[in-house]
Amino acid sequence: MNTHTPLLDRVAGPSDLRQMTDRDLARLADELRAETIDAVSQTGGHLGSGLGVVELSVAIHAVFNTPHDKLIWDVGHQCYPHKILTGRRDRIRTLRQKDGLSGFTKRSESRFDPFGAAHSSTSISAALGFAVARDMGHPVGDSIAVIGDGSISAGMAYEALNNAGAEGRRLFVILNDNEMSIAPPVGAMSRYLSGLYAGQPFAGMQALAEGFEATMPPPMREGARRARQLVTGMSPQGTVFEHLGFDYVGPIDGHDLTQLLPVLRAARARATRPILIHCCTVKGKGYAPAETSADRGHGVTKFDVPTGAQAKKAASAPSYTSVFGKALTAEAARDPDIVAITAAMPSGTGVNIMADRFPSRVFDVGIAEQHGVTFAAGMAAAGLKPFCAIYSTFLQRGYDQVVHDVALQGLPVRFAIDRAGLVGADGPTHAGAFDIAYLGALPGMVVMAAGDEAELVHMVATAAAHDAGPIAFRYPRGAGTGVDLPERGEVLDIGKGRIVQEGEEIALLCFGAHMAECRAAARMLEAEGHSVTLADARFAKPLDSDLILRLARGHAALITVEQGCAGGFGAAVLHLLAGQGVFDRGLAIRTVCLPDRYIQQASPEDMYADAGMSAADIAATAKAALGQRQGRVVPFAV
Amino acid sequence: MNTHTPLLDRVAGPSDLRQMTDRDLARLADELRAETIDAVSQTGGHLGSGLGVVELSVAIHAVFNTPHDKLIWDVGHQCYPHKILTGRRDRIRTLRQKDGLSGFTKRSESRFDPFGAAHSSTSISAALGFAVARDMGHPVGDSIAVIGDGSISAGMAYEALNNAGAEGRRLFVILNDNEMSIAPPVGAMSRYLSGLYAGQPFAGMQALAEGFEATMPPPMREGARRARQLVTGMSPQGTVFEHLGFDYVGPIDGHDLTQLLPVLRAARARATRPILIHCCTVKGKGYAPAETSADRGHGVTKFDVPTGAQAKKAASAPSYTSVFGKALTAEAARDPDIVAITAAMPSGTGVNIMADRFPSRVFDVGIAEQHGVTFAAGMAAAGLKPFCAIYSTFLQRGYDQVVHDVALQGLPVRFAIDRAGLVGADGPTHAGAFDIAYLGALPGMVVMAAGDEAELVHMVATAAAHDAGPIAFRYPRGAGTGVDLPERGEVLDIGKGRIVQEGEEIALLCFGAHMAECRAAARMLEAEGHSVTLADARFAKPLDSDLILRLARGHAALITVEQGCAGGFGAAVLHLLAGQGVFDRGLAIRTVCLPDRYIQQASPEDMYADAGMSAADIAATAKAALGQRQGRVVPFAV
Repeated sequence: MNTHTPLLDRVAGPSDLRQMTDRDLARLADELRAETIDAVSQTGGHLGSGLGVVELSVAIHAVFNTPHDKLIWDVGHQCYPHKILTGRRDRIRTLRQKDGLSGFTKRSESRFDPFGAAHSSTSISAALGFAVARDMGHPVGDSIAVIGDGSISAGMAYEALNNAGAEGRRLFVILNDNEMSIAPPVGAMSRYLSGLYAGQPFAGMQALAEGFEATMPPPMREGARRARQLVTGMSPQGTVFEHLGFDYVGPIDGHDLTQLLPVLRAARARATRPILIHCCTVKGKGYAPAETSADRGHGVTKFDVPTGAQAKKAASAPSYTSVFGKALTAEAARDPDIVAITAAMPSGTGVNIMADRFPSRVFDVGIAEQHGVTFAAGMAAAGLKPFCAIYSTFLQRGYDQVVHDVALQGLPVRFAIDRAGLVGADGPTHAGAFDIAYLGALPGMVVMAAGDEAELVHMVATAAAHDAGPIAFRYPRGAGTGVDLPERGEVLDIGKGRIVQEGEEIALLCFGAHMAECRAAARMLEAEGHSVTLADARFAKPLDSDLILRLARGHAALITVEQGCAGGFGAAVLHLLAGQGVFDRGLAIRTVCLPDRYIQQASPEDMYADAGMSAADIAATAKAALGQRQGRVVPFAV
Repeated sequence: MNTHTPLLDRVAGPSDLRQMTDRDLARLADELRAETIDAVSQTGGHLGSGLGVVELSVAIHAVFNTPHDKLIWDVGHQCYPHKILTGRRDRIRTLRQKDGLSGFTKRSESRFDPFGAAHSSTSISAALGFAVARDMGHPVGDSIAVIGDGSISAGMAYEALNNAGAEGRRLFVILNDNEMSIAPPVGAMSRYLSGLYAGQPFAGMQALAEGFEATMPPPMREGARRARQLVTGMSPQGTVFEHLGFDYVGPIDGHDLTQLLPVLRAARARATRPILIHCCTVKGKGYAPAETSADRGHGVTKFDVPTGAQAKKAASAPSYTSVFGKALTAEAARDPDIVAITAAMPSGTGVNIMADRFPSRVFDVGIAEQHGVTFAAGMAAAGLKPFCAIYSTFLQRGYDQVVHDVALQGLPVRFAIDRAGLVGADGPTHAGAFDIAYLGALPGMVVMAAGDEAELVHMVATAAAHDAGPIAFRYPRGAGTGVDLPERGEVLDIGKGRIVQEGEEIALLCFGAHMAECRAAARMLEAEGHSVTLADARFAKPLDSDLILRLARGHAALITVEQGCAGGFGAAVLHLLAGQGVFDRGLAIRTVCLPDRYIQQASPEDMYADAGMSAADIAATAKAALGQRQGRVVPFAV
């Protein structure tokens, strides 16, 4: 640590901020910024969003009585400065590491995190829940949701604003608006707001703010007006928020404590209803390499603080995401009906690769998975071939639409499901654990998983060709295995798996990207003299029942393996075999899948080891099954 | 049929409407209304919403070129007049019956139903999908979404408006606003709009409409202004829709064809961008018994047309819904921390019973399942005891919130899941088929199902007492079995089932309300000389592994039974037994669950028979399992 932080060193918790002068709070913010940069330079993680809320973090903790007052950060990836201020500074360099601090807010980590997050747009709903409890006499203070301009545009946030406005309870929503590069005029506004804090009733404050705009020199006035209009999409006469029942204050400069502190103090002193405080911030603020980068330092690896140079990862195989993006683009070049949909994740999902070549055929709907899925369904009903590219964990947001609009109608929407299985540093909130189960349950859905990145290319081709109904294919986060990629994907037979190697004693039947571990397990078993068949199921739905029955009949033990929860692929195999009466006569079968608990952040390898799904675990499971099978066979208890 | 319908008799399809004079279209609407009333009097179903859109149905089909133009009814329960006009009049008296017309729009039923619906708020998303396909050269005409004021308030619809406004494509959204009892002034507006249709460019039309308001006598002007303001929540200067990128026209009288026809014609002739046409309608319009009833004839049984008197159902056991509502109210009376949340379904879920007694502790969040679930999570985090009462099929809308906000954080939200299993006349869109699978997948979730209505009372008590984490209990639509209800619910042991009757040969292990069929199956088997154990699992999660292993060891055949899809309770039992090595030595096990297809509307009994889940089916499955088991036992293929 090479930052000089005399004020921050005196902060054991937020109550220490409440003893400081406003001038010291501003200096503290500078130290907090330096400390955040230094910490993330050592851990990697979300940098830009945290830097954008340094002053906001200081101001909220200085003005509100956390943790009695409930501060809820939407998404939570901007919470590093908050963690430093709330007793976690000593562990801040363990962020996102195994056994370290979460990269998001987390209830189990601190009483200063009253409601954890990692998916977007949940904060206002949760804050309203706390407000109701307070009004019903529970020992809860005020609730404050801090939400970004992207998050607040999602349907869920709209539902919450709508309901909170109707409820009319005292509630604070701070809009952290970091898309605005034009900060409103600063000094005069600040003085004006400080004056307001002293005495005016709240409604008056807003009127005065508007009057103030009018007295400013025209160029500045126009800036302030545009600021407001840009973000709210509203004319100065009234914001959407006001029509939804909120008081509205803003926009103010979210990096200027001389604005933030008086506004928050005034709001806290006077609000009787829901209030939205509109703060303009700059993502990456105060760290030039972040401010000037295209993504404003959204997510970084370890980096050198003076230069901002990020550690390069060792050259490895291309990522599944990029393999998908390229394969999709190749299919799109052949078929003009192919379109792609993303929910605010063009580069995360790789559809930006297609957008570079076919910009008018890639649709970013914003943080709006519900709409995105049904929009794709409409396209499919009209004869297009939509690829709906959404991470496994976020597709949960559009589940009813997958059921009701896509599957029930048998519409050929292609779901490209990235981040399937365990994802590493983002931890359990981002795990793609449930999609095999929740999609496999739906009649008419085809569910594939890619055993490696070459298989992914085939599955993109298969999905492009499959126009009879919905089809999904899942693949993990990160680099592929390094196999050669085909020139062009083959269209796979729907519902047919493949035998990778033939053996006689143990059958390992893998669905998806755990193939590498299954190969390793096969090597281990072979080293001990066992004969192993390795099969790639390719499809969890429809099942390759011929293949599975053949494996069941031809082996002493059958082990299913998948990067997902119980109730998915293994369960489908068990249902099949039960229905066929295979268990009547005995079969040593085991299902290797995620255990019934959330797996905490670590490297994906460590997470799978934690889950009992390493190659050694698979081999041990197979041997144990074989052991029991090789013991005496007694029809029991009849 | 006792209606005189000379014009309607000449309508084979919408193209016939396009040959009629406006005067005849008005008469046709009257005949269509009479026919709708007569048909629903014979079938029961959704009456009020259809009557509210009689004129709209006539006008849209007369002006737009359906089915080339795509008309998408949101929710779809208002589509009976549309079905009569689109070639389905001859089957309209089979509505909602077995093998009859669906009570919703359905793609497989007619090319005039381009996108089916039954859940709300999907229409704008789908319509935008069609608009994109048209713009990409597909043989698709215009797309028209008709959406109610309730549906358009959901987050999903907001996401769609937001995206459609940004896309800027030609698209028609008709807001069917039936909450407004104050219709705007009619005659003058109508003439004015007819005049507009002739020549003005579209943007001007809106300006003129506003100008027109200003020229009206003050009382009428105020009415028109208030009309607009009430629904849009906006001042006359600009509506939310305009700020989202839509042109806006309205409000107009949705029962006056002399307004509807010219406005739609003008819109069709001139729109280049998305346009929202705001129509005020009256639910139940034109049928006094509907207009004057509290729910405006929303859902009715068969009725007498002259009087509106509905057929009474034979007195039977109380419904699960009312048993839940009363049990919840009793718990709420004992514990002031109990609150209830519903998403626009207070009477459907029975929480209205609690609201009658504790109005401030019941929260109707509107059609907003995402917000509702996280709002409940916030309440739970603050120490309240929320019961989140949402139908199985609609809880799919809040799935990510159940995963991310409730289960991952281990928050004690109680999910009361009505309409679990097959639901009868509402058909597959409303089936509660997937909840056991999608909730059972989540670590930390407790999942119960009530074997009868007395069990439901116990489960409400159990959920009230369970504060260690989330808990869900499911129960079916309709009447209970008539068992005695306990004075007060008992708190059940978490993860413990019960033996209902002890036998020796066959074990029937039921999860939930199929207990009655299991009892009947047991009687059948006993009549053939078999000894049957009947067990009520009560919990799908955590499983009662002691009970299940005991049943597996002590019987020749074990049959699991559940009113849900594969991947749920039976799969959990299979996973358990596989992991314990029980299959190594052989066990004749079968899982009785919903098959891998959608079950079409009929009575629940007929639907379960269709699904192969009747008592006779269960008995036959048990005997088949026993037969194989009783045959030679050969360890195979080792």
